Amino acid sequence: MIVVMEPSATEENIKEVEEKVKKCGFQPHPDKGEHQTVIGVVGEGDREAALNSLGAYPGVDEVIEITKPYKLSGKEFKPEPTVVDIDGVKVGGDNFTFMAGPCSVESKEQLFEAAKAAKAGGAKMLRGGAFKPRTSPYSFQGLKEKGLKYLAEAREETGLKVVTEVMDPREVELVAKYADVLQIGARNMQNYPLLREVGKTDTPVLLKRAMTGTYREFLLAAEYIMAGGNYDVMLCIRGIRTFVQDTRYTLDLSAVPVLRELTHLPIVVDPSHSTGSWKYVPSISKAALAAGADGLLCEIHPDPKNALSDGPQSLKPENFKEMVEEMKPIAEAVGKKI
Amino acid sequence: MIVVMEPSATEENIKEVEEKVKKCGFQPHPDKGEHQTVIGVVGEGDREAALNSLGAYPGVDEVIEITKPYKLSGKEFKPEPTVVDIDGVKVGGDNFTFMAGPCSVESKEQLFEAAKAAKAGGAKMLRGGAFKPRTSPYSFQGLKEKGLKYLAEAREETGLKVVTEVMDPREVELVAKYADVLQIGARNMQNYPLLREVGKTDTPVLLKRAMTGTYREFLLAAEYIMAGGNYDVMLCIRGIRTFVQDTRYTLDLSAVPVLRELTHLPIVVDPSHSTGSWKYVPSISKAALAAGADGLLCEIHPDPKNALSDGPQSLKPENFKEMVEEMKPIAEAVGKKI
Amino acid sequence: MIVVMEPSATEENIKEVEEKVKKCGFQPHPDKGEHQTVIGVVGEGDREAALNSLGAYPGVDEVIEITKPYKLSGKEFKPEPTVVDIDGVKVGGDNFTFMAGPCSVESKEQLFEAAKAAKAGGAKMLRGGAFKPRTSPYSFQGLKEKGLKYLAEAREETGLKVVTEVMDPREVELVAKYADVLQIGARNMQNYPLLREVGKTDTPVLLKRAMTGTYREFLLAAEYIMAGGNYDVMLCIRGIRTFVQDTRYTLDLSAVPVLRELTHLPIVVDPSHSTGSWKYVPSISKAALAAGADGLLCEIHPDPKNALSDGPQSLKPENFKEMVEEMKPIAEAVGKKI
Amino acid sequence: MIVVMEPSATEENIKEVEEKVKKCGFQPHPDKGEHQTVIGVVGEGDREAALNSLGAYPGVDEVIEITKPYKLSGKEFKPEPTVVDIDGVKVGGDNFTFMAGPCSVESKEQLFEAAKAAKAGGAKMLRGGAFKPRTSPYSFQGLKEKGLKYLAEAREETGLKVVTEVMDPREVELVAKYADVLQIGARNMQNYPLLREVGKTDTPVLLKRAMTGTYREFLLAAEYIMAGGNYDVMLCIRGIRTFVQDTRYTLDLSAVPVLRELTHLPIVVDPSHSTGSWKYVPSISKAALAAGADGLLCEIHPDPKNALSDGPQSLKPENFKEMVEEMKPIAEAVGKKI
Repeated sequence: MIVVMEPSATEENIKEVEEKVKKCGFQPHPDKGEHQTVIGVVGEGDREAALNSLGAYPGVDEVIEITKPYKLSGKEFKPEPTVVDIDGVKVGGDNFTFMAGPCSVESKEQLFEAAKAAKAGGAKMLRGGAFKPRTSPYSFQGLKEKGLKYLAEAREETGLKVVTEVMDPREVELVAKYADVLQIGARNMQNYPLLREVGKTDTPVLLKRAMTGTYREFLLAAEYIMAGGNYDVMLCIRGIRTFVQDTRYTLDLSAVPVLRELTHLPIVVDPSHSTGSWKYVPSISKAALAAGADGLLCEIHPDPKNALSDGPQSLKPENFKEMVEEMKPIAEAVGKKI
Repeated sequence: MIVVMEPSATEENIKEVEEKVKKCGFQPHPDKGEHQTVIGVVGEGDREAALNSLGAYPGVDEVIEITKPYKLSGKEFKPEPTVVDIDGVKVGGDNFTFMAGPCSVESKEQLFEAAKAAKAGGAKMLRGGAFKPRTSPYSFQGLKEKGLKYLAEAREETGLKVVTEVMDPREVELVAKYADVLQIGARNMQNYPLLREVGKTDTPVLLKRAMTGTYREFLLAAEYIMAGGNYDVMLCIRGIRTFVQDTRYTLDLSAVPVLRELTHLPIVVDPSHSTGSWKYVPSISKAALAAGADGLLCEIHPDPKNALSDGPQSLKPENFKEMVEEMKPIAEAVGKKI
Repeated sequence: MIVVMEPSATEENIKEVEEKVKKCGFQPHPDKGEHQTVIGVVGEGDREAALNSLGAYPGVDEVIEITKPYKLSGKEFKPEPTVVDIDGVKVGGDNFTFMAGPCSVESKEQLFEAAKAAKAGGAKMLRGGAFKPRTSPYSFQGLKEKGLKYLAEAREETGLKVVTEVMDPREVELVAKYADVLQIGARNMQNYPLLREVGKTDTPVLLKRAMTGTYREFLLAAEYIMAGGNYDVMLCIRGIRTFVQDTRYTLDLSAVPVLRELTHLPIVVDPSHSTGSWKYVPSISKAALAAGADGLLCEIHPDPKNALSDGPQSLKPENFKEMVEEMKPIAEAVGKKI
Repeated sequence: MIVVMEPSATEENIKEVEEKVKKCGFQPHPDKGEHQTVIGVVGEGDREAALNSLGAYPGVDEVIEITKPYKLSGKEFKPEPTVVDIDGVKVGGDNFTFMAGPCSVESKEQLFEAAKAAKAGGAKMLRGGAFKPRTSPYSFQGLKEKGLKYLAEAREETGLKVVTEVMDPREVELVAKYADVLQIGARNMQNYPLLREVGKTDTPVLLKRAMTGTYREFLLAAEYIMAGGNYDVMLCIRGIRTFVQDTRYTLDLSAVPVLRELTHLPIVVDPSHSTGSWKYVPSISKAALAAGADGLLCEIHPDPKNALSDGPQSLKPENFKEMVEEMKPIAEAVGKKI
């Protein structure tokens, strides 16, 4: 931690800060420059007490945190990449894993058709929402447990592993009964009771970055899950909110190489929610693979014209299949196995 | 709803969209312009089915929603402003209500001192977190029920009404037992199970705008609560996330007049979280009042230098008192009672 | 300046950085923490050489600049507030100055009517664009020199000082012949040849913040002007670009207290461009005054329904007058003279 | 164009808007829905007069523009992709063109070394700034004409075409004398006098997207150039400004497929400015190619540790060469010739 004093700070201001630094269990290393003093905060003290109070001292301009606040999710804790093993399906390392399926489970027929298309196209995992976080209370909220049952049946039928969202800490147990991977949606990236609850299970978790989440907040959300003992966390990038409104969100693809530097966890990209239009999905999916992502979470629908949610951003089965085919030589070029 | 067809759309594309519009229960009103056709979607059909599918049709450029999707929170449902009555303390109308207190309840002594300062300064309500949503799992998470008890005791002592955050749907009942107002934090604006749960109580709710929430999403979040039968919702603006990093968040103060046009619900401003620095709080608080807000949610701390959270953005008791005094003539100028 | 080394940086990496720091004329002050080393860069060396190269060294995680890079525009250079004197009309200090007029000068009649309304309402300065930066090349580009002449005539008629935009370094001399204040538009905040050119004149400058400009970039833009010898710079805040699309831009009103801390230059707010709608202008104007701004740059039009540009955000004369009246008691409350 | 009336709009309001629509030369097509009336604006009238005034009418909620405002840069004007031919080097179509070189021309030696490395690595064009837009007036501003001369000499030596920035309309002729391509920097995307000036030349232009530029504004900036008769415009994406601060800017890679739909102009990606760190450049460059971009504008430096600008984001010659090699199979996979 570094405390930057204002140029106008007095000797007394500096002394008072040094005292506080010591009280927090650190050693202060003041560095008197021409313009202003900078105080290095060194040692193993009460980081939080310092961070929450030093800025309140007169003469302090800024408190800059240097040490990364996440531990288990960081590269320093574990330098080699984590490969999450979902009952034989691997995410991470040199694998590139397709997770495909409809936004919502709408009916058994729709789901089974989508599952077959996902499998035929090359997916190893089936996505599909049974509990849906909808912006409006008057929108279709999902088939709930019935949807979960269909997902489990589709797994039986196709062998695809099931990833589905859980929104409520009270439903974690129920969803985990049916799902192979628990998805935490973007709106819930900082829903800490929910993160703690999935952290108590031993079901792998797909954690989506919030529309407004910094990398630091994203990794600290993963930390909430891992701190509970569940280390099987996959990070999913799905678009942030910016001034750009021609796409549903803005895909921040640089997150792939940046997170790769910071964390050992696998990184999955959702091209459907980030663009909001199936037409852009193949271009963005190829880019995600070339950038070094570990997998794709992609919406497909057997009949987008009659979808109950996200029709415009769902690939048709034939488009999905074609896209995967086109991605194979890219995978080879970047050393990934599809 | 309006469906904008691409300039290259064929007669067949247009026809297919018209058929779908009818299937959804609406009447299509096509308007053939020089460049492209625009199809008005008129009547009372299945809005959601249309919205989630029309964009998937070939030749469709854009689907624009015209009608506001919120009902109970909108001005059309109730044109006159809502005044929430919290056991005698009023928020909304021509009242300007101060809610002040520490970020976290840290101890009985700290809370009582803060409560007395809040009261002495002119506040009618006491804020203070017992359950804290912290970015890191290793940070102080609040005193939990013990904190709630202190809050209730401080109410006994001072007569101030208590507003405190609830994060977990499983704890709504517990928090409502002690609190006069349930606060939903910015990270939980779209935590729908939580919104539904507080919607079932008859305790007033202070709903904070998410860092990335649009006005539409904000009002739909209020709608989730109101749809459950709890109409006592207050909206709280606390800063959005933008490229500006010199303040903790960016206060979007235009939200005050814009929301005033869209909704009848009271609008409260949080100057502490939006700026992140106590030095800017008086300026922003005055601006909020002048812009037409109905109240202020403001962090004060008897000893910011030893705060366990948010020290740098907490006003000292004397600064709070001074600020309220300075705001009185502004309140008079804009017709608000402090 | 501070160089943060990666936790994995070797002794050799650190040494190499220290050598470079010395080569740039500074003294390195390394601080070895538990996790990583931080090197303070102290003294008076070649700041730019250091900033542009240190990040390229292996083992360097981050280079943090501490010292503010602006000089003339900063508070340290001149602690007391600058009052710009425009031929008797003062901006800054305890003055609150209204600058009002149409977006574009459309005709002599329109301008004169607007000028009279501005004066009647309480403005001391007349705004109006003769050279217009329009997003489309096919839009009305302004009356150019004819517009400037009308502005000068309106000054004769009303006594109002004239503020008008200059876009092209080749036209600075021409515009300065007619104008009392040269306006630099938001799109040109980092148009350095233009800034240098107005810096050579002795005409006061109203510099607008770019839609995406940080405070640092804003003050460095002012610095470009001041470095040329022209110290009469007024800063104008007009809304930044964020994800919010219900208003034309997002007014970052916290810029008022933050800039007040950083600079001695006067701060003017443009409520018209920031909101894009005349309905929100009074609320935002009052907020700007209460927050501590020094003036308002406000669009008014005698007949918004027939405006050639910005009709929807222009106040009618009677609304302007009414707004100024309502602002007077607020001005008194915050110690400003209208 | 569509005029959305408020639900509370009266018959008279609607009538008044219809009259105005007619006065602007259009036909109004009102569509009375259950909740509100929507007026289609059809025909060939004075689009601008309508856009700048209709929002000022009472009862109008929103004016939505449907028709794309750009003409020459749009797909409707020219459906097949434009291939810009720079004296034999092609940008667009099935070509993927590398433009590489240092941020600034620092000396003849540095430039020649960089040019040889660019050529050896596979670049067809040499980038290098002679006139530099620096945030601070006290930073190195480039070698100016001397830099241009070195660039021309490097072309002689290597056969690489030269792309270099022009910032001042008064210098367009000078820069065009030496350069093969005129670069318009992000800060100048809406510098209309400059755009007009390069539009008068017959030198190809590389136009960079502003940090805050929408696609519409970007294409209208191209339109300014093309409206002057210069059709050889290449679009360059280089990162937008968002809340993400771990990279220098946020690369909005979805711009590639979206712009591809809207325009026939070639699309080039700048991975250096978007990320700000050479470590991320290979990942992002591969992604750009896979997404369908037509070329790369990439910073390389023979000695980043002694760069006068942008050292941390410059690739070393060997890294550049290695990256190009790794990109070749991806190019083949997506049907592009490197």
